[in-house]
Amino acid sequence: MAVARRWTHLIRFIAKEDGRIHLGQIDAKKFPDVGLAVFEGRTVDAKCISGSVYDGLVTDRTLHVAQLLPPLSLEQIPIIRCLGLNYRDHAREANMAIPDTPVLFIKPRTALNGPYPAKINIPKIAQDDTADYEAELSVIISKDCRDVSKEEAYDYVLGYTASNDVSARAQQLKNSQWCFGKGLDGSAPIGPILVSPEVIPDPHQLDVKAIHNSNVVQDSNTREMIFGIAKTISFLSQGTTLERGTVIMTGTGPGIGMAKQPKVVLRHGDDMRVFIQDIGTLINEVYYE
Amino acid sequence: MAVARRWTHLIRFIAKEDGRIHLGQIDAKKFPDVGLAVFEGRTVDAKCISGSVYDGLVTDRTLHVAQLLPPLSLEQIPIIRCLGLNYRDHAREANMAIPDTPVLFIKPRTALNGPYPAKINIPKIAQDDTADYEAELSVIISKDCRDVSKEEAYDYVLGYTASNDVSARAQQLKNSQWCFGKGLDGSAPIGPILVSPEVIPDPHQLDVKAIHNSNVVQDSNTREMIFGIAKTISFLSQGTTLERGTVIMTGTGPGIGMAKQPKVVLRHGDDMRVFIQDIGTLINEVYYE
Repeated sequence: MAVARRWTHLIRFIAKEDGRIHLGQIDAKKFPDVGLAVFEGRTVDAKCISGSVYDGLVTDRTLHVAQLLPPLSLEQIPIIRCLGLNYRDHAREANMAIPDTPVLFIKPRTALNGPYPAKINIPKIAQDDTADYEAELSVIISKDCRDVSKEEAYDYVLGYTASNDVSARAQQLKNSQWCFGKGLDGSAPIGPILVSPEVIPDPHQLDVKAIHNSNVVQDSNTREMIFGIAKTISFLSQGTTLERGTVIMTGTGPGIGMAKQPKVVLRHGDDMRVFIQDIGTLINEVYYE
Repeated sequence: MAVARRWTHLIRFIAKEDGRIHLGQIDAKKFPDVGLAVFEGRTVDAKCISGSVYDGLVTDRTLHVAQLLPPLSLEQIPIIRCLGLNYRDHAREANMAIPDTPVLFIKPRTALNGPYPAKINIPKIAQDDTADYEAELSVIISKDCRDVSKEEAYDYVLGYTASNDVSARAQQLKNSQWCFGKGLDGSAPIGPILVSPEVIPDPHQLDVKAIHNSNVVQDSNTREMIFGIAKTISFLSQGTTLERGTVIMTGTGPGIGMAKQPKVVLRHGDDMRVFIQDIGTLINEVYYE
């Protein structure tokens, strides 16, 4: 099994051949959007990656994807740190002042969810006509770090993935703190692909869209971020250890369901997608428990 | 080694005899305040507990305490969920409306800290004359649970301990979300003793004090809680898995440093204590990094 090179487009998946979980390298020329390809039932193959997501090398062994999983497992993700109001347009839409420093809230690891066929489960407490989406670029941290400077921030980026900051708006906005309404089980779908920083030298030039039942409901670009990725990692790590595997959701653009006229709500059976340029599509069906 | 009974007053400690970490049962008649006793250099013995914090039974083997640790290890605590504005008096002091539902914010597990000799480290970003204390009763969850009713909430309580919700006020109040300013490394000292619910049948009758350099700066009682423990566990678990080992900090009473005239600030070398009736004292020295 010849070991060739470090991965650049990583998926975690269950293979058709053996029904087991593997890490795989996707050929981005053949499958520029692996989430969409698998959802549409196309035959997708991947080169096995030997080693972990942190040190994995691409091998010659080919397997076929039966099911996609989030790129890191639940056990590998200690926490999900999220930015609020990090897009200029969204801050205006939400009628909030542009913040001076990143606005941090936290989702517990129990919020982690994967791509299709994983569903966005809406629990009873959020079945109140306010379940909402937020299309976001997520950054995964590669090793424990603290007090990181802006200059060295990218040394700690393992890769980028698509994510949806699913929000129970009524609960979120009932009081000043957002953690409960944004922390429900499964409210943080991520994936399917993790793209390495070598492939995306500038993560502030990426289209980000939310697509709800085939309607493009959010359509922005990461250049609209108020705090870029280096500043975000640097700030969040001040006096604070960012553990390996930490997911940082970098905020969303305008067009959240609550702000639409008429408003858009995640309802049972809906098709919900997050598309990010050079990364691909995260697809989930909405499921009312 | 005769196994007698389930623990009621548990500590985690390094033993003088072997320099290793043990779980121990404290005789509460002999040591009604184990944190204070160890801090004052008294000889404290404990009966070894065999098994884990979840199923531990008290044995006949006696060891002596060289150093106290938090009652659960960093690896055992997935997350720290905290209530804001949960004491009527404190909500008034902070000039905030009494909330309709518990106000949740989250500290990451990296915030976990222990009792003396563990120090409250104040990182550079919080050395701005706003480092503050909040004396709080903490509840530890005994097993994974979700959608818990008020009636069954106590089935999931492993025990109670003392805790300090250390807060970098300027960072906390810079924008709407408190997670960054309250999530710094070591900002969640807990312990040293974990007292079982059998010993504290009503956790809403306990004096809670913060003592800063020998001055009682907070002096309240858990009966002042807006949302009691059953309601808190029930609400926080709606649509949300509370993992085993979760710490729930139940909020603080009036007298936070920021609201004092003149204001009180945690400074290098300060002696900071949280006393809770029937539980004891959590002692930490403040250390500016």
